[in-house]
Amino acid sequence: MPKVNTAPPSGTRDFLPNEVKFREWVFDTIRQAFEAFGFLPLETPALERLETLLGKYGEEGEKLVFKILRRGERGKQDEVDLALRYDLTIPLARIVAEYQSQLPPIFRRYQIGPVWRADRPGQGRLREFFQCDVDVVGSSSPLADAEAILALTEALTRLTFSDFTVRLNSRKVLAGLLEAYAVPSELRRGVLTTLDKLDKVGPMGVERELRGRIVPAELAERIGKDLCEPPERVIEMARTTEIGREGLAEIEDVTQLVAPCLKSGRIEFVPFLARGLEYYTGPIFEIFTPGAAGGSIAGGGRYDDLIGSFTSKRIPACGGSLGIERVLLLLREAGTKWQKPTGPQTFITVWDRTFRQDAIRIASELRTGGITTEVYLGEGKIGNQLRDAAASGALYGILFGPEEKAAGEVSVKNLATQQQTKVGRDQLLANIQQLLQQR
Amino acid sequence: MPKVNTAPPSGTRDFLPNEVKFREWVFDTIRQAFEAFGFLPLETPALERLETLLGKYGEEGEKLVFKILRRGERGKQDEVDLALRYDLTIPLARIVAEYQSQLPPIFRRYQIGPVWRADRPGQGRLREFFQCDVDVVGSSSPLADAEAILALTEALTRLTFSDFTVRLNSRKVLAGLLEAYAVPSELRRGVLTTLDKLDKVGPMGVERELRGRIVPAELAERIGKDLCEPPERVIEMARTTEIGREGLAEIEDVTQLVAPCLKSGRIEFVPFLARGLEYYTGPIFEIFTPGAAGGSIAGGGRYDDLIGSFTSKRIPACGGSLGIERVLLLLREAGTKWQKPTGPQTFITVWDRTFRQDAIRIASELRTGGITTEVYLGEGKIGNQLRDAAASGALYGILFGPEEKAAGEVSVKNLATQQQTKVGRDQLLANIQQLLQQR
Repeated sequence: MPKVNTAPPSGTRDFLPNEVKFREWVFDTIRQAFEAFGFLPLETPALERLETLLGKYGEEGEKLVFKILRRGERGKQDEVDLALRYDLTIPLARIVAEYQSQLPPIFRRYQIGPVWRADRPGQGRLREFFQCDVDVVGSSSPLADAEAILALTEALTRLTFSDFTVRLNSRKVLAGLLEAYAVPSELRRGVLTTLDKLDKVGPMGVERELRGRIVPAELAERIGKDLCEPPERVIEMARTTEIGREGLAEIEDVTQLVAPCLKSGRIEFVPFLARGLEYYTGPIFEIFTPGAAGGSIAGGGRYDDLIGSFTSKRIPACGGSLGIERVLLLLREAGTKWQKPTGPQTFITVWDRTFRQDAIRIASELRTGGITTEVYLGEGKIGNQLRDAAASGALYGILFGPEEKAAGEVSVKNLATQQQTKVGRDQLLANIQQLLQQR
Repeated sequence: MPKVNTAPPSGTRDFLPNEVKFREWVFDTIRQAFEAFGFLPLETPALERLETLLGKYGEEGEKLVFKILRRGERGKQDEVDLALRYDLTIPLARIVAEYQSQLPPIFRRYQIGPVWRADRPGQGRLREFFQCDVDVVGSSSPLADAEAILALTEALTRLTFSDFTVRLNSRKVLAGLLEAYAVPSELRRGVLTTLDKLDKVGPMGVERELRGRIVPAELAERIGKDLCEPPERVIEMARTTEIGREGLAEIEDVTQLVAPCLKSGRIEFVPFLARGLEYYTGPIFEIFTPGAAGGSIAGGGRYDDLIGSFTSKRIPACGGSLGIERVLLLLREAGTKWQKPTGPQTFITVWDRTFRQDAIRIASELRTGGITTEVYLGEGKIGNQLRDAAASGALYGILFGPEEKAAGEVSVKNLATQQQTKVGRDQLLANIQQLLQQR
């Protein structure tokens, strides 16, 4: 037989039961945190019209959209009309445009689900991974920005993260800085990208990279010098412009709303935080954890113009995304305690094939009594059956052979202590329920 | 602005919050039923290697596999190497082959998730829909077939279905019949497909269709005549062959195991039930509901040779699939009672922008006390805010304005009775907890 490749496609993963249960625990914890704030779940298809996604993610992003062939057609022009969902934000914008009349005027939604990106496989990059988004649509209030940030930090806190920092900025502060430094408009995007790296490369690195972007030498030098000063210097620059002052007021508003409500972590103003995506219009934030395992675990911002690309109304919106795959990894690495799945409460052994009917009836009775129960489905002897029972994590082995049948009894074996007792056949359910209560 | 199409792609669906919650309730009910039997959850990627799926679903099925373009490449040979998951059975077979050493020798798994089929859009056909499978891998025992059937009927019973019939047959009975009637081997598949329609077209319809399949006229007539007799006639024909006798013994075994444990519904032997897919080797079944809303809502069988196509070992397996989308529809049509999602327990109004900080702090306190809480995020007056609160299904409106602030109090409004009371600011959480307990 030829060797068949049974690994999942590169960049995708199979989740065996324990991993599914761990992920479910994390997702449920997050859902409960979001629902405490009034956010409601939304689900959208994996498939989107290709036209819905095009023009939304920039040139580089667009290359990563997975395109799907029309049924049975190959090699034709226009052969592709569907694509796989690339994020959860564009689908949200589409939903708001499509179902406006059915949604409350201020719509709080969360969505947890897979997205797909045609990244080059290998290098550990995922091509199918989960995103976890929380957004408020229809509100211009800084309370909405604050609630989105607090919902994310609440989820992180419930997941036992404590030492994180919410880094806050506003696109308007950045716009003010660009204006104050008189950065030519065609260079603004590049300058923002460079400023965003200040943390990693330092003021001199920023200056060097700015020169590489053909920013006038004098300007690059000036920005580099100001970055060496305390941040107040740059903030004062922003304050010289109207848009910059608007941004600073936003940051003050959001900080005052968020700071007193944070149960763990802290919030700070980082005037160079830029975030890559184009569509942000107001406050933006990222949540960082410190140390070797550190880095960004969430981020988001206000995007008041995005939904307008799907509908003629301008609808303000803001929200954030939890880097759920990274969060899952960090929780695993930290050995976070969670409610591990247990095996079945009882495991019914099968004396021989003539006892199959008895075994399945006993199982049925116990299940009706709310007890999770496995029936042995193999061909092994009782000793092997009990070994299987212990391996599956079962608490009690149930034995019912000719001897028990004749006496109208059932043997119950505690698989941890190996202690075995007999109970009346009609007392079994009550007995097991009692044993489980006493644990 | 050009009109943008914001509907989901045809054959796919968006689920707004209430529908998500309804589906979650159904899925959770099913999960709990399956887990009571020891079945464990598995998750596999939406993407599979195209080669994994090819040659598994027959010519017609294969046309419906959604194929995905390689990144950035178009018009090239070999441009497609990935496809969307078409069902949950082939991924299970792949998983068993890949992770044999990590899985118990007898592996009970369930999986609930979307699959994709490139059916022609329109005509109400879904191209993205959920499947819900439960399977036992590694057991040849009829107990395994019985447990799969019982897990499905348990799920249906918990979902309030009661009047259903499990129709049981065995591929071996069908093989025996084909042998007994000396159907030429090249015609066997067609004859099975025709026999499967007996219910719909009657004995004469079967005879007519058999002739259409160029079955010798004499044979078609003989089968048609026997089908007019009570089923015992056909069963006796099967019993004349060894394989037929094996099949009848299987049916007796499974029936004896399932029948006494059914909490609702019934099981019956239907010697012409064939089920379309090729890969079944032993007992097969379908679960039907009666009446206008009737039809098949589940089906499955034993497929001892399928997993061997991914690994050199022969690994017996059996299981079934719940027609979850149909089940969801039937439950909706029947107006089934379920735990409908409620709105937030409290809704915090915001007196004016100077009270935003107070509002979010009150919300934070209540949430910390386990109370789901929304904060008003719009620009309306208090009256409008309270209208929004009622619309979102909130139980209590919380008011905190200059008067309350000065008195160190908070006003609590029961949104159903409109009754409003004042409590001390530091008594609010305890007061709300008490109110909720009294409901």
